[in-house]
Amino acid sequence: MSTLHDPSTRGFASDNYSGIHPEVLDAIAEANGGHQGAYGGDDYTARLQDVVREHFGARAEAFPVFNGTGANVVALSAATSRWSAVVCAETAHVNVDEGGAPEKVSGIKLWTVPTPDGKLTPALVDRQAWGWGDEHRAQPHAVSISQTTELGTCYTPEEIAELAVHAHERGMLLHVDGARIANAAATLDLPLRSFTTDAGVDLVSLGGTKNGAMLGEAVVVLNPELTGPIKYLRKSAMQLASKMRFVSAQLIALYEGDLWLRNARHANAMARRLEEAVRGLPGLTVLRPVQSNAVFAVLPREATERLQKRFRFYTWDERTGEVRWMASFDTTEADIDAFAAAVAAELRG
Amino acid sequence: MSTLHDPSTRGFASDNYSGIHPEVLDAIAEANGGHQGAYGGDDYTARLQDVVREHFGARAEAFPVFNGTGANVVALSAATSRWSAVVCAETAHVNVDEGGAPEKVSGIKLWTVPTPDGKLTPALVDRQAWGWGDEHRAQPHAVSISQTTELGTCYTPEEIAELAVHAHERGMLLHVDGARIANAAATLDLPLRSFTTDAGVDLVSLGGTKNGAMLGEAVVVLNPELTGPIKYLRKSAMQLASKMRFVSAQLIALYEGDLWLRNARHANAMARRLEEAVRGLPGLTVLRPVQSNAVFAVLPREATERLQKRFRFYTWDERTGEVRWMASFDTTEADIDAFAAAVAAELRG
Amino acid sequence: MSTLHDPSTRGFASDNYSGIHPEVLDAIAEANGGHQGAYGGDDYTARLQDVVREHFGARAEAFPVFNGTGANVVALSAATSRWSAVVCAETAHVNVDEGGAPEKVSGIKLWTVPTPDGKLTPALVDRQAWGWGDEHRAQPHAVSISQTTELGTCYTPEEIAELAVHAHERGMLLHVDGARIANAAATLDLPLRSFTTDAGVDLVSLGGTKNGAMLGEAVVVLNPELTGPIKYLRKSAMQLASKMRFVSAQLIALYEGDLWLRNARHANAMARRLEEAVRGLPGLTVLRPVQSNAVFAVLPREATERLQKRFRFYTWDERTGEVRWMASFDTTEADIDAFAAAVAAELRG
Amino acid sequence: MSTLHDPSTRGFASDNYSGIHPEVLDAIAEANGGHQGAYGGDDYTARLQDVVREHFGARAEAFPVFNGTGANVVALSAATSRWSAVVCAETAHVNVDEGGAPEKVSGIKLWTVPTPDGKLTPALVDRQAWGWGDEHRAQPHAVSISQTTELGTCYTPEEIAELAVHAHERGMLLHVDGARIANAAATLDLPLRSFTTDAGVDLVSLGGTKNGAMLGEAVVVLNPELTGPIKYLRKSAMQLASKMRFVSAQLIALYEGDLWLRNARHANAMARRLEEAVRGLPGLTVLRPVQSNAVFAVLPREATERLQKRFRFYTWDERTGEVRWMASFDTTEADIDAFAAAVAAELRG
Repeated sequence: MSTLHDPSTRGFASDNYSGIHPEVLDAIAEANGGHQGAYGGDDYTARLQDVVREHFGARAEAFPVFNGTGANVVALSAATSRWSAVVCAETAHVNVDEGGAPEKVSGIKLWTVPTPDGKLTPALVDRQAWGWGDEHRAQPHAVSISQTTELGTCYTPEEIAELAVHAHERGMLLHVDGARIANAAATLDLPLRSFTTDAGVDLVSLGGTKNGAMLGEAVVVLNPELTGPIKYLRKSAMQLASKMRFVSAQLIALYEGDLWLRNARHANAMARRLEEAVRGLPGLTVLRPVQSNAVFAVLPREATERLQKRFRFYTWDERTGEVRWMASFDTTEADIDAFAAAVAAELRG
Repeated sequence: MSTLHDPSTRGFASDNYSGIHPEVLDAIAEANGGHQGAYGGDDYTARLQDVVREHFGARAEAFPVFNGTGANVVALSAATSRWSAVVCAETAHVNVDEGGAPEKVSGIKLWTVPTPDGKLTPALVDRQAWGWGDEHRAQPHAVSISQTTELGTCYTPEEIAELAVHAHERGMLLHVDGARIANAAATLDLPLRSFTTDAGVDLVSLGGTKNGAMLGEAVVVLNPELTGPIKYLRKSAMQLASKMRFVSAQLIALYEGDLWLRNARHANAMARRLEEAVRGLPGLTVLRPVQSNAVFAVLPREATERLQKRFRFYTWDERTGEVRWMASFDTTEADIDAFAAAVAAELRG
Repeated sequence: MSTLHDPSTRGFASDNYSGIHPEVLDAIAEANGGHQGAYGGDDYTARLQDVVREHFGARAEAFPVFNGTGANVVALSAATSRWSAVVCAETAHVNVDEGGAPEKVSGIKLWTVPTPDGKLTPALVDRQAWGWGDEHRAQPHAVSISQTTELGTCYTPEEIAELAVHAHERGMLLHVDGARIANAAATLDLPLRSFTTDAGVDLVSLGGTKNGAMLGEAVVVLNPELTGPIKYLRKSAMQLASKMRFVSAQLIALYEGDLWLRNARHANAMARRLEEAVRGLPGLTVLRPVQSNAVFAVLPREATERLQKRFRFYTWDERTGEVRWMASFDTTEADIDAFAAAVAAELRG
Repeated sequence: MSTLHDPSTRGFASDNYSGIHPEVLDAIAEANGGHQGAYGGDDYTARLQDVVREHFGARAEAFPVFNGTGANVVALSAATSRWSAVVCAETAHVNVDEGGAPEKVSGIKLWTVPTPDGKLTPALVDRQAWGWGDEHRAQPHAVSISQTTELGTCYTPEEIAELAVHAHERGMLLHVDGARIANAAATLDLPLRSFTTDAGVDLVSLGGTKNGAMLGEAVVVLNPELTGPIKYLRKSAMQLASKMRFVSAQLIALYEGDLWLRNARHANAMARRLEEAVRGLPGLTVLRPVQSNAVFAVLPREATERLQKRFRFYTWDERTGEVRWMASFDTTEADIDAFAAAVAAELRG
């Protein structure tokens, strides 16, 4: 098979428009050859446990899966019973971007809360976390937050710890959708465990794909009481890779050294570079703090439309004209500068 | 990341113990670099359509997914309604090896039929295909067969055509679990479409992983009336890859040229070589025709136990002592000869 | 068995605290004796079709079920596919009071909309009805409204017709949760079909239990294209009564003559009588128009607490102190007057 | 509403073709009038607990539901997790007669076993109860048996106790589908607890409808560890009656005194009377022991067809010509004698 696409093209549509980081691709090749036990009975999945424990502590266990929806639904299924519900932000990926998978695969009711910035607080959780013991109300048994959020914002360790205490006091577990957890660590400049294990989080969806992997995430179980069911849930949710060594090898490539952090720091820096370049342009407003690899901006629709003819990015909110510009591990300074110049040219006329 | 395993070790446990065929790995690398539309909006997924149509005809459409369970459940969900059931062999992978995914993800009732050799016939289908119009009986709306079967047997095109006519006359669709469809084509020495499209099959789960891919299969829709729902079902079944280009590139690498067939022919030949070498050994019986890349044999348990200390393979049926020996694309003649010699040494004492 | 309770006690907690209207109980007795075909093959279920057609037109078909949750979930399951979502008010019974049954039984995603008064409008529907063709978004395929709403408000026929046009133009069906549909007809002083069949509604959950039946509702299908699946969905949703004649007989007793309307008119009148008696009392505010058999009022918590020691009713909103007082078919003027006097005594204290 | 049917007609189609026993109808009337707490907060549901405990012991708890499918699915859902399977006879009602409800409502995989007489044994259970720890196999977590079975056979207390020990030793729970449990007690001439509580059963679906109730069954939990989830599962499975007093009153009417046993003894006696009258007729074979209220016989198809023009009954197995004749609480000796005479006339020509 020959290359069909133009590998020099990059845009700002999403971090999953990018490809595979060369070190990850090398890791896949390193894991190749010979026979290894299928379905996780391989040396790479075993090694991944060590890698994950260095980040999340000695009790952590990692269950590789194919994608983020799979990680979230398997994790939330382990955190809930058939009669449960999960409290999450209205903007949560599990609510708006997974085609109803939580409801359809596991019958999970989502109790959603509007938030100003994609972040839950104990008070916001309480808008839906009530009614335990009343069988008419799907029982809130877990809280799910995204770190970083879908709006590019980032929880502090203290904010997550407060949510964990709040959830646990009410008999709920705390799940973190960490599709972009590396970006959070880079923004906070803190180890992963500071805002997960140490903050009382029970389950993490550990991202890989959006940070340089080809495909691969993991459910990381921090609360050992939840470990038992995961393997069965992963299988019946169709997230069990037969040649798992190649998923695990990717996650090792990212998390064994500092590739996960290098990639995230770079992507975050590119987003900040873009924000700094466009902030203050006439007619453009950056709406949200840039605490991740995304810039959310409002600008005139006509400018957006003309820019979209040359650069790939999405309108986030059709009503307000808000757009989202995402940087990736492979976004270059030149990419940013060229794009910022184009935006400036549009807006300065 | 460095290599953790011994790439010179191969066994006979399963074709998914093997790794990635070098041409497939190359294809992944070729597809890398730059940005491409996520979720299938890439040049490789587009090209895959052409490749699939060369095999299955102009109306075929391919929907890449992560694994075989995903392909089967998405296909069967498209073939059924909420009140439906699927008729399949008792030994079908969807019944015995998917952790209850069809039931749990899509509420599909499986009406199972015991078979002598893993193959359904119209008469066997009729043991469960009845009761339409009676709401007490989950309605049989599809028949699912495996080609080749889990017992290593292979349908002729005529047998499949007969099943398709039988199913369609009764308002049922016909699905083929083609995790090892390449092995069937190699055994039959016929093009894929001869026993799918041309035989009246509605949906195929097109295998990749067991035939040299890293991971990747596709739902191939042959009956265009079923195309509409697939993308939604794939997403809500958590089988939608964001960086789909790398799944599609693998399938292109296999199916664009003849790699799919070379790999399958080789694996089949290795299984036959093994069968020929062990057939007639004292105390050993080959139970089933070798029409795929597996040899099923009964031999004394003590011999099995000693062999399993040196070679990896599974006991298929604990009660009878039947074992399964599988060859893969990377099994060598030397592998077979060494193993056959060991079996012979055990049995000849 | 002897009577265990005090049949002279009545309260204001809910219309389902009441018992069976004597004419409905008589109907059960009339349908007794001898053998009749089970699962709907009886003379009463046949007769019910005629009764329902007199109300809803010649194409209507009724499928008796056990309860309102069952009626709603069966109806919405018929209106949707496995990848669908339903748009409804945040306050809808299907969202807040069914223990997650739509999600858990049929995997239905609910896209909820906050409303001022429990009523959807086309503009409110549009807050969630978008994204068709995008597989990441559970596809909005139906709108569900309650008539009367859970907040005691009532749609006009024109409002429903406008919603139906709006839904249909966007490929969505319109379902009416009619647990209290009789109260709406009484308030509007219009026939049932004026705001269902004639307004373009596709499916109605026809209430019985809250209006004098012992237990029994029906899915009434107005759009004949949806009839086919209902019997299978009813069965697999565990809503198929074997001795259906006794469910159908209750619905006949209500809807054959004018008992449904007499009961609803009476309950509505009792609610209005209560509202008139308490409106203007110091410290009491009636928050919502009384267009059904419920009065929603805010009064001091201490008054509520003292009243609840003598009269049974629920606090509707713990935060605001809003209470709900419901009248039933068997509420008497004396009941209302005594309760209103007690409220007045509390507030005038 | 007036009587629409001929109350003097009775047949042999099913015990659910019969109506309401007069004492049960009286109980419904006794429970009527005034207001009672909805959803089980009534005096009858409280009293039912005492009644059930007299039969099943001090730890039993009863959860009234609408129908047998509901009782079975709620019970099996409580006995299983999302990744579980249930072992049952191929002929079990949950497998063949519930429209796929266990799979569709709760995602329960049924591992079915062919049986000679509808009864499981430890050895038969073991044909499917294996593979714990292997995530590819839906995990067997419960065994479900029917007492009496769908084939009219009856377990002894010893047989059930043996199954309970066998199941518990393997980490499985034991559920009894007791739609006709009264018929078993009558056949065995033993108290209900002798073959349930005392035999180690965990959950019973306690029948009412087929033994003289209008509609109503109960999940009776004998293993207190399973009590917690039931109310939530009942609600989300849409089996929670708002006016529950009328379901509970029916069960009290049956089980408080000996009506349950009188009705079952009578129905059983009528079946035996029929069997005795037809046994030995030329061309007729009674296939199964009559241990319940059903007679299964094979006779010439032409005779069956002519008889079905005058008497209502079902062909049980189209292939063999086996028919099922069921007696009910209201079957009279004259009914039996007339029917037996007609059968004799047909066969003796």
